[in-house]
Amino acid sequence: MDDKVIMTDVTGRDGFQMEKDWIATEDKINVINEIIAAGIPRIEATSFVSPKAVPQMRDAREVIKGINRESVEVIALVPNVKGAELALEAGVDEVNYVLSISETHNQKNVRKTVGESIEGVKDIQKLMDSSKITVSLATAFGCPFEGLYEVDKILGNIETLTAAGLSRFTIADTTGMANPVQMTEFISTIKKHYPQHYFGLHLHNTRGMGLANIYAAYQAGMRHFDAALGGIGGCPFAPGASGNVSLEDVVHMFEFMGVPVDGELPKLLEAALNMEKLLGRTLPGQVMKSGQADKTHIA
Amino acid sequence: MDDKVIMTDVTGRDGFQMEKDWIATEDKINVINEIIAAGIPRIEATSFVSPKAVPQMRDAREVIKGINRESVEVIALVPNVKGAELALEAGVDEVNYVLSISETHNQKNVRKTVGESIEGVKDIQKLMDSSKITVSLATAFGCPFEGLYEVDKILGNIETLTAAGLSRFTIADTTGMANPVQMTEFISTIKKHYPQHYFGLHLHNTRGMGLANIYAAYQAGMRHFDAALGGIGGCPFAPGASGNVSLEDVVHMFEFMGVPVDGELPKLLEAALNMEKLLGRTLPGQVMKSGQADKTHIA
Repeated sequence: MDDKVIMTDVTGRDGFQMEKDWIATEDKINVINEIIAAGIPRIEATSFVSPKAVPQMRDAREVIKGINRESVEVIALVPNVKGAELALEAGVDEVNYVLSISETHNQKNVRKTVGESIEGVKDIQKLMDSSKITVSLATAFGCPFEGLYEVDKILGNIETLTAAGLSRFTIADTTGMANPVQMTEFISTIKKHYPQHYFGLHLHNTRGMGLANIYAAYQAGMRHFDAALGGIGGCPFAPGASGNVSLEDVVHMFEFMGVPVDGELPKLLEAALNMEKLLGRTLPGQVMKSGQADKTHIA
Repeated sequence: MDDKVIMTDVTGRDGFQMEKDWIATEDKINVINEIIAAGIPRIEATSFVSPKAVPQMRDAREVIKGINRESVEVIALVPNVKGAELALEAGVDEVNYVLSISETHNQKNVRKTVGESIEGVKDIQKLMDSSKITVSLATAFGCPFEGLYEVDKILGNIETLTAAGLSRFTIADTTGMANPVQMTEFISTIKKHYPQHYFGLHLHNTRGMGLANIYAAYQAGMRHFDAALGGIGGCPFAPGASGNVSLEDVVHMFEFMGVPVDGELPKLLEAALNMEKLLGRTLPGQVMKSGQADKTHIA
């Protein structure tokens, strides 16, 4: 198994969607371009969703247009076929189609049953090759309305989606409910059942276990991870949701563990500090406060 | 190997020592007694140090006197033989004698060379049985003045202290520099060299890796962990120091991992929220904000 870790930055999407105050399109683009300049290879930049549901994402098209795309794969979240059409028009490389394992959360998030959401992806497959569609399975480890899940629940959904010709999935712990033992079981089981599929992992640090879960998932064979600069973000339709694992903290951990990972830490830390100024509040990221583990002070 | 984890709460010592504003003795005692009532079996309650160096600890004797000792082991930090005498007079069960692996940090912290600190413990051994002395090896994984360390550096110090008849050690990551790979190597190596010794682990979440390191250390055989309520604390003489791993977050992780651990989570969360009111600022603990992983909301 290749040791290398591939990071997908979700600051522009999962990060900004939780911000109540409007962030100017130019500022969004600047943050994302700083992350690209720091060497992160995959960027989930925005969502093509209803501007009524998530006003902060109403400039999706302009954001995609403004970012420096030379060296990166650009992804946008889409909740339905209309969003996928808009994302294609904007010229994204890949769409992230989101559905929840939880019936309750899927209703809150996209106002459909899980079955309807699974049917919905088939319309998107008519628009583009399935290799350009990643399906995010939200509330994969548990749901804030329904409680913790066993792995069988997600396996059933992956089976149905696999039968429909899909092979790229992001496993999402939407409100940070997973622990390292559950993580190990889920990732091992899922990867054993579908060794040829692409799997990514999307974690929130809601209960402080974000990096512990990343370490457990890495041990279980996971190599693709989502994260957001400064640890911002969360789902507006999940009670108790809080920030993503912090991009620069995840890159920092892997780098000091000796695991190959793209992303220049000094540039990421600078980008996080710049975004902290932009947002005007202290962000959850830790390394942006402390400096890298090998930073030394004068005695 | 027994699966059970034993927690030592260090709120009264490592937590409060970093607080600039005076905390009334009665308030300190109330916090500690809430932690005891929640079922934590070992309490490092205070330090017998110079009141000039750490004014917050000047009520050490009264704190020891005020806490409910029926069901717990009570520990106090001591930097020298005078502190050990005072701790004995106050009737503690155990002293935590602290020395740093780093020459630079040991000078800053206790104004001695490492060699002088190692000699100093021999005077304490004249006062009490060595089974009542735990030696904390601070800056074990690296020092904010000197950088990251290899495991050989701490092994040499444990060897010298073992030759002096000591067998209880706390390995401390004073400024949160360790990562899970380094942690695994250190704990495996140390436990392999000294299988009969008692080892505890004392971690700070300075770079967000606190729980990841605890998980890695648990996998490597560690069973004794320090933590502070709400994630407060830090060393006043180490630049960039920040909070301990949060007691309730650590207990929460182990409980949801299915690892036996003492401590009733609802009582710990209530104690953390009460202490947050007392200290008057948002604390780093995560589960105190989110609730347990199995907390559900009404849809």
